[in-house]
Amino acid sequence: MVQIHDVTFRDAHQSLIATRLRTEDMLPIAEKMDQVGFFSLEVWGGATFDVCLRYLAEDPWERLRSFKSRIKSTPLQMLLRGQNLVGYHNYPDDIVQKFIELAYKNGIDYFRIFDALNDLRNMETAIKTAKKLGAHVQGALCYTISPVHTVEYYVKKFKELERMGCDSLCIKDMAGIISPSRAYSIIRACKEEGIKVPIDLHSHTTSGMAEFSYMRACEAGVDILDCAISPFAGGTSLPPTESTVAALQGTSYDTKYDLNLLLECRKYFLKVWEKYRHLHKMYVLKADPSALAHQIPGGMLSNLIVQLEQLGATEKLNEVLMEVHRVREELGWPPLVTPISQIVGTQAVMNVLFGRYKRVIEETKNYVKGLYGKPPGEISSEIYTKILGPNWRDEIIECRPADLLKPEYKRCRDELEEMGLLRSEEDVISYALFPEQTKKFLSGEAKPEFTSDQLPLMAEMMGRRFRVSLYNEEYEVTIRKVVKSKEGGK
Amino acid sequence: MVQIHDVTFRDAHQSLIATRLRTEDMLPIAEKMDQVGFFSLEVWGGATFDVCLRYLAEDPWERLRSFKSRIKSTPLQMLLRGQNLVGYHNYPDDIVQKFIELAYKNGIDYFRIFDALNDLRNMETAIKTAKKLGAHVQGALCYTISPVHTVEYYVKKFKELERMGCDSLCIKDMAGIISPSRAYSIIRACKEEGIKVPIDLHSHTTSGMAEFSYMRACEAGVDILDCAISPFAGGTSLPPTESTVAALQGTSYDTKYDLNLLLECRKYFLKVWEKYRHLHKMYVLKADPSALAHQIPGGMLSNLIVQLEQLGATEKLNEVLMEVHRVREELGWPPLVTPISQIVGTQAVMNVLFGRYKRVIEETKNYVKGLYGKPPGEISSEIYTKILGPNWRDEIIECRPADLLKPEYKRCRDELEEMGLLRSEEDVISYALFPEQTKKFLSGEAKPEFTSDQLPLMAEMMGRRFRVSLYNEEYEVTIRKVVKSKEGGK
Repeated sequence: MVQIHDVTFRDAHQSLIATRLRTEDMLPIAEKMDQVGFFSLEVWGGATFDVCLRYLAEDPWERLRSFKSRIKSTPLQMLLRGQNLVGYHNYPDDIVQKFIELAYKNGIDYFRIFDALNDLRNMETAIKTAKKLGAHVQGALCYTISPVHTVEYYVKKFKELERMGCDSLCIKDMAGIISPSRAYSIIRACKEEGIKVPIDLHSHTTSGMAEFSYMRACEAGVDILDCAISPFAGGTSLPPTESTVAALQGTSYDTKYDLNLLLECRKYFLKVWEKYRHLHKMYVLKADPSALAHQIPGGMLSNLIVQLEQLGATEKLNEVLMEVHRVREELGWPPLVTPISQIVGTQAVMNVLFGRYKRVIEETKNYVKGLYGKPPGEISSEIYTKILGPNWRDEIIECRPADLLKPEYKRCRDELEEMGLLRSEEDVISYALFPEQTKKFLSGEAKPEFTSDQLPLMAEMMGRRFRVSLYNEEYEVTIRKVVKSKEGGK
Repeated sequence: MVQIHDVTFRDAHQSLIATRLRTEDMLPIAEKMDQVGFFSLEVWGGATFDVCLRYLAEDPWERLRSFKSRIKSTPLQMLLRGQNLVGYHNYPDDIVQKFIELAYKNGIDYFRIFDALNDLRNMETAIKTAKKLGAHVQGALCYTISPVHTVEYYVKKFKELERMGCDSLCIKDMAGIISPSRAYSIIRACKEEGIKVPIDLHSHTTSGMAEFSYMRACEAGVDILDCAISPFAGGTSLPPTESTVAALQGTSYDTKYDLNLLLECRKYFLKVWEKYRHLHKMYVLKADPSALAHQIPGGMLSNLIVQLEQLGATEKLNEVLMEVHRVREELGWPPLVTPISQIVGTQAVMNVLFGRYKRVIEETKNYVKGLYGKPPGEISSEIYTKILGPNWRDEIIECRPADLLKPEYKRCRDELEEMGLLRSEEDVISYALFPEQTKKFLSGEAKPEFTSDQLPLMAEMMGRRFRVSLYNEEYEVTIRKVVKSKEGGK
């Protein structure tokens, strides 16, 4: 039997409509989603925290509590970037510990914990803290393709994660590039090497291979598959929950979920999907297999194009794409995920425009110093020298990056108190992660981009104008409904 | 090794943009598509013929010859509805024979031949004619779900098709409802029962299961999979060619096609896809697993809704959906494909609105008489009586429906000649199939809906108005490009 971890409430709308689903559009279906009997429901993490504060003027903690009060049986899961939590750099241990304690207290049952470099040291504090609280910890490894990232690499790291106390494991293929045979080999090898805890495969339909890989993963003995309810599935999102359930019905992998119940959920999400029509982008809905050749995730590619446009050097794109591979190799084959993908991309652009490593950005320096964690592969002394200069050996750290950070909770708490904005411990954590947004939010200055009832429903926007973004251009669109005559009209 | 039959030039754009791709937008990539080494390329059949004459003011024969002159190595395939050819009812044998002879002469190498009811008698003449010419015949069976359509049913029929001389066989799952385990069972059983000719699986991504099923089909020993280049793949179309190729790379099913070459084709089709933007409908791009519960194909469902709207009875939809199942069972479980799906749907609407079989449409009568072919399952004498009256036994035919039809070629030829429009034998066939459209076309009255260079390219349509169909409503849209200032713009 296979179970499903449904990500409609988090990753799916992050992948398709920039994490913009508002809490009030998710709560009405929460009880029904709870009835399905999913392995868990992803409701928090990734960009939720940031977007809630920055664009929706919502309190992420309040969202979590609202879910918890409605979802009584299904465990709530969050995605946590190890020492980065839900932010974009390392935080000190006291913040990590407090964040996890409060997330647990407010409703998170399962913590999916990963690190962009698969450096387990960056996951240690988070795993320990969650385990101590009694939470379920899912140890996740970023999937990428490189000479370093062999089947053995994943099995070895997963075994370490199991030893560290993880209750389940996850192959996190956020770029959607895992092939069916690769998914099979890794899962099979994990099982054969004696890993006992359940294994979850998380892939995206970006390149059009995910369903092939899910099928093979089942045959390899995968325990959990990540999916999203169909209106929020496909393209840069994940395989549809209902289709996956139907595809496995009557086999030994049968989820035993009620397809009709799922279709009721679909019906609800279909309306919500249409409500957020102003954020739809057709191209994120279609499979883009080109990443399978150049292995550059879609988000990174469009960033590179924007960068080159700004520099008036779009004709250099192919050169930059080749340079990305070279830089990635020279930096020890890091997975191309945030924030590493930005570093590799920007450095590649610099190298093409100004000569190789003639201009080195600060982040590249920090990366090779080890401040993000240990690079997966080797970096040659030649590259070290180019990036950090002849005394590079003195600049490299060997310790866990967070060991260099001082506690911050008390400072954050004091600052908030001084501003007269201190309401709760949760607010202190919000402030520690996103100080500017939290200050605005707590002081009542934050305005949402839109509220749920302002959303440009088709019925409401007749005769109005709105802006759409199509293939990287902005257009202003005016829409009028065509009124058809009763007779003769076609 | 698995091969791919690519359908981008026919089924893919029929599924996504109502078969509207014009020949001049396909020819520039024909040579490159030829280089891939596909099993075959589908270029003709289905709705091509009808749409060319009716909406594009194109000569379908000319399209075929143009493909043939550019595609030198890859066999060209067409989809042929048995005795219906590319039309919507049975034609006499002389028209069927002539059509196939001319299709072969003009460039078709492989004929995929099927019948809506899987009545092999309706495929006989077509198969024999094509075989006699030396063409490759692929015998196809419509896939559907019913107590009659068991694995044994398909194996038995496929064996008969092999005996009839078919060079390959095809499971034609036009509704996209075949499950991975079902695909596996049928293909496996065919192989185990000694079928020697290659087996092709044709499925659509409509319900989101196709890739799962393709993966399992490979494991069952499928020889050919049907796919479309990614910009024209997904949703109501088929799985992406490039993704399928990538997914199978390095396995024993490896197609060995050049992924980079395919991505060049993708690049071309991406531009073409954007060019036809006025025909894009977002909802056809997204998986709709609801068909998996009610088993009513998407096209049929939207027809039913339109019918009920016109009758002011939309509140009866659920009742009609249940009635569809009942009618289908009573009519001996026909597959829900054109034209049978329309018959079953309309009769179900009649039954709900006026009482069961109180009003029987002419087509239902003809169907039970056997004029479309032999129904797959049994029809009770009670139902026969309700539909045809007490003397129903006298009205039923036992022979092959086309045995009742008189030759028509000469009459058609004479009529064309009389009108002074006779240019070629091909025109006679066009006229036999679509007399009105062909008359208009040959006399120069036909006007295309649009020509390729009138297409509303984004750059061209600025400030113009156009109409779009969204969720069954028509809207008039005006678009203006937002001009951004060089500085400060974001």
